[in-house]
Amino acid sequence: MTTNARRTAVTLLGLGEMGAAIAAAFMDGGHPVTVWNRTPEKADALVAKGVRRAGTVRDAVAAGSLVVVSVKGNDTARELLESAGDALDGRDVLNLTDGTSAEARAVAEWAKERGTGYLHGQIMTIAPGIGHPEAVVFYGGDRAVHDRYRPELALLGGRGSLVGDDAGVPALYGMAVHGTMWGTLNGFLHAAALLESAGIETRRFLDQAGPSMSALVSFLPSIADEVDRGEHAVEYGALQHHLPSLEDLVRESRARGIDAEFPRYTLELVAGAVAEGHAEDSYSRLIEHFRKG
Amino acid sequence: MTTNARRTAVTLLGLGEMGAAIAAAFMDGGHPVTVWNRTPEKADALVAKGVRRAGTVRDAVAAGSLVVVSVKGNDTARELLESAGDALDGRDVLNLTDGTSAEARAVAEWAKERGTGYLHGQIMTIAPGIGHPEAVVFYGGDRAVHDRYRPELALLGGRGSLVGDDAGVPALYGMAVHGTMWGTLNGFLHAAALLESAGIETRRFLDQAGPSMSALVSFLPSIADEVDRGEHAVEYGALQHHLPSLEDLVRESRARGIDAEFPRYTLELVAGAVAEGHAEDSYSRLIEHFRKG
Ligand SMILES: NC(=O)c1ccc[n+]([C@@H]2O[C@H](COP(=O)([O-])OP(=O)(O)OC[C@H]3O[C@@H](n4cnc5c(N)ncnc54)[C@H](OP(=O)(O)O)[C@@H]3O)[C@@H](O)[C@H]2O)c1
Ligand SMILES: NC(=O)c1ccc[n+]([C@@H]2O[C@H](COP(=O)([O-])OP(=O)(O)OC[C@H]3O[C@@H](n4cnc5c(N)ncnc54)[C@H](OP(=O)(O)O)[C@@H]3O)[C@@H](O)[C@H]2O)c1
Repeated sequence: MTTNARRTAVTLLGLGEMGAAIAAAFMDGGHPVTVWNRTPEKADALVAKGVRRAGTVRDAVAAGSLVVVSVKGNDTARELLESAGDALDGRDVLNLTDGTSAEARAVAEWAKERGTGYLHGQIMTIAPGIGHPEAVVFYGGDRAVHDRYRPELALLGGRGSLVGDDAGVPALYGMAVHGTMWGTLNGFLHAAALLESAGIETRRFLDQAGPSMSALVSFLPSIADEVDRGEHAVEYGALQHHLPSLEDLVRESRARGIDAEFPRYTLELVAGAVAEGHAEDSYSRLIEHFRKG
Repeated sequence: MTTNARRTAVTLLGLGEMGAAIAAAFMDGGHPVTVWNRTPEKADALVAKGVRRAGTVRDAVAAGSLVVVSVKGNDTARELLESAGDALDGRDVLNLTDGTSAEARAVAEWAKERGTGYLHGQIMTIAPGIGHPEAVVFYGGDRAVHDRYRPELALLGGRGSLVGDDAGVPALYGMAVHGTMWGTLNGFLHAAALLESAGIETRRFLDQAGPSMSALVSFLPSIADEVDRGEHAVEYGALQHHLPSLEDLVRESRARGIDAEFPRYTLELVAGAVAEGHAEDSYSRLIEHFRKG
């Protein structure tokens, strides 16, 4: 049998923005797709294209070999799976519902206890990105389930990867990427406000400062190594050199009447580390701040 | 005359970590270099290599056509230049001293009043990066000075660019790059603390999540356009979708006993914008927060 000829029957629980995109991707990939959604009308467009609508979770689950869940919250995900009863026997679950690592792990443990194959996925794209060659999904859980459904997973995105056998790890990876993203966006929007106050368009800045901005993520591997090794001493670019630049940024922000809280937050972190004797250490020394609850 | 044969005589005021690297770059580029530093011994190593040491600022300035300044603070930079008196007549100044845009502009205005050509430069590399093809320097001030010394400026870094005729703009560009960098680093170190608490090495994460991390800076051009146009509505990935992910990150941080202040800060910004009716807008809508002093 070729990959296409397998035609794994796929069940989808949840047809929100994301669930609908996933159902369409499996249908376009040639799989028989059965869907269930709390609000049944959300399936109308998909049904018109050939997707089967089930009246109950149990019926939906019975129709598929791979049961995909995409709802709001892992408590809901687990309740829906539980409500399928023994219809779930012999099926595998791919849970694409976001939440904390502990919540993902709780669903995985429940599945394991009842002998159901389980994979958790953290989707790193927005709904229209589903199926794109660049779309990233982090998977964690049963390696056997991951390997069995490789062709099906490839329909969700070209850059899927199994990041561990712990179903909680995909959520952590997602948070690590998004947390870095929010930091970048906050810094960038503060910068945009600064430039705007001087009459400079953000896009003009970005076009002229492109190489400097692209270089930002290139610092991360050395920071990562410093964190992992717990070795922070550096010959150049140490915290003591960040300090005057941060003071300038806070003064400039105040002088221009824009937000000074965000740069002041960083200034306090750096000044604190310098005061504790880490003036000649890399910025990675601030990991000690973020470790503390 | 070829570029090399010109051999512009260069004077350097200030031989800190950065000034010493700049003096060496001009010397290696074949220029006669005269230096002055408040603490004269700091010139010893350079003098041994053929650089001339002047006893006073005035003598140093008299020896060069291009007077480069690299000291701590633009008040000091201006005092030094002033102390040269009429020895500065007919010279051009390249001031590479960091500070706020207003401080840079004040030195530029002083130079303009006395009829001295003036260029301000914001160096975006650490001292050992001086002269590197990838090293960025943002210049602002007299275009004529910039154009006259193109070959000399190229010795400082391969990616120099004139970003405006306002001597204050290079500082703003530098702050915009560094401000974004600090946001990225804070987000990344928080992420590292999160991963570490789950026993995951930061480097392993980075190796596996590389494409997602590189993609972070690729969002910035569209954010920039939204800011410049003041149009924030988006069909996908709006603030309402950031909210549950931010709540997850705060809960996860608390559950793991790591810092929750940094994600909570972002959660409050996003929740505030959603409460103000911007649920369906892009993250760029938060520019309104950063605009406010
Ligand atoms: N949208 C994205 O771009 C995106 C990106 C990455 C990850 N995700 C994740 O994908 C999952 C789904 O997100 P979405 O954007 O599709 O959300 P959505 O458009 O708000 O849809 C939510 C889905 O969950 C269902 N649901 C909510 N509470 C339920 C309950 N108590 N019982 C049964 N069903 C319930 C909804 O059913 P009704 O239709 O009946 O309300 C709907 O199918 C979430 O975990 C989200 O974090 C989404
Ligand atoms: N180092 C870098 O990687 C780097 C990167 C980008 C930009 N910069 C900028 O380059 C400039 C120099 O930095 P640096 O790293 O070379 O600093 P540094 O190593 O601390 O040296 C400071 C320099 O300023 C001089 N100085 C300070 N106060 C003075 C005063 N009142 N009168 C006369 N001279 C005075 C010092 O003279 P003494 O030797 O007598 O103390 C020394 O030459 C700064 O604006 C800095 O922000 C540096």
